[in-house]
Amino acid sequence: MLAAARSAFAERGFDGATIRGIAGEAGVDPALVHHYFGSKDQLFLAAIEAPADPADLLPQLLAGGQDQLGEGVVRLLLTVWDGPMQPAGLALVRSAVGNEWGAKLLREFLVTQVLRRVVGALDLPPREAEVRGALVASQLIGLVMGRYVLQIEPLATSDPEALVAALGPTVQRYLTGEVALPA
Amino acid sequence: MLAAARSAFAERGFDGATIRGIAGEAGVDPALVHHYFGSKDQLFLAAIEAPADPADLLPQLLAGGQDQLGEGVVRLLLTVWDGPMQPAGLALVRSAVGNEWGAKLLREFLVTQVLRRVVGALDLPPREAEVRGALVASQLIGLVMGRYVLQIEPLATSDPEALVAALGPTVQRYLTGEVALPA
Repeated sequence: MLAAARSAFAERGFDGATIRGIAGEAGVDPALVHHYFGSKDQLFLAAIEAPADPADLLPQLLAGGQDQLGEGVVRLLLTVWDGPMQPAGLALVRSAVGNEWGAKLLREFLVTQVLRRVVGALDLPPREAEVRGALVASQLIGLVMGRYVLQIEPLATSDPEALVAALGPTVQRYLTGEVALPA
Repeated sequence: MLAAARSAFAERGFDGATIRGIAGEAGVDPALVHHYFGSKDQLFLAAIEAPADPADLLPQLLAGGQDQLGEGVVRLLLTVWDGPMQPAGLALVRSAVGNEWGAKLLREFLVTQVLRRVVGALDLPPREAEVRGALVASQLIGLVMGRYVLQIEPLATSDPEALVAALGPTVQRYLTGEVALPA
């Protein structure tokens, strides 16, 4: 079931894949998929072995208000990655860089599970939401790569709050500030 | 010779490795290494199969003046990566994510060949130069990952100049603006 799900999410994207279609591929009843995994979000997270469910983590973030969102996103990312979920996160990144399927699945995870939820709090037109979300992603992925994969100093060993202070304003600008929107 | 060089640069870092030591490991005369590769920089670039020599590209960047440096760095990165060097660049990133040696070599490349040169133009105290360089790296690596590896839209297909306008101010702030310096 999870293999069929991975294949469907990679080929058709999160929005294009259906529980019915995945159940068909796996030769099981759609009700069984619902029974085991609940929603399509849950099935997707299980299929990619996501280290955490962003839906559980984001409400506390959004409670801080729009002006704190940039710092909040960086702080939340560091809390998750500095904790026990780091190996699973690194495995996702390795898979994304190592093969095209992995790249598609990580992209779908970021766009549909993380960015849409963060940017969704801002009530923007869809196109602007997509652009701002992608800009946020560019800074967050770079932080993960710099701190955990390449281990560039002082990113690798600095105090999380120092990174929140340095990178938070960037994420805040991408979310709510003036950005020249890429065409 | 290149295998001995890769091993030395990964184990001791760019600054710690010596041409004499690498020649010894490879069982050849140091003069031979100098003859074939010229400087330690050149040997390092050959060892990691770097797609381009930053020393050739950076002078035009620095000629634009300090206020244009942020946009210039983003523009130069996109010019290199949108061109024929992309496959070699992707190979470097894959190797960095795939194994610890690869990560060390790409980090040494970024720190000693790219960041030191860019930040070196600003005449900063060493510690501040290191911090600003690492922050710049976090945004640039994220751009490469978002546009070329994960292919997140609209990063993946947008016009380079739109990305220069959106991300240039971030890099500029990291280089010359107010940043809370990570301790």
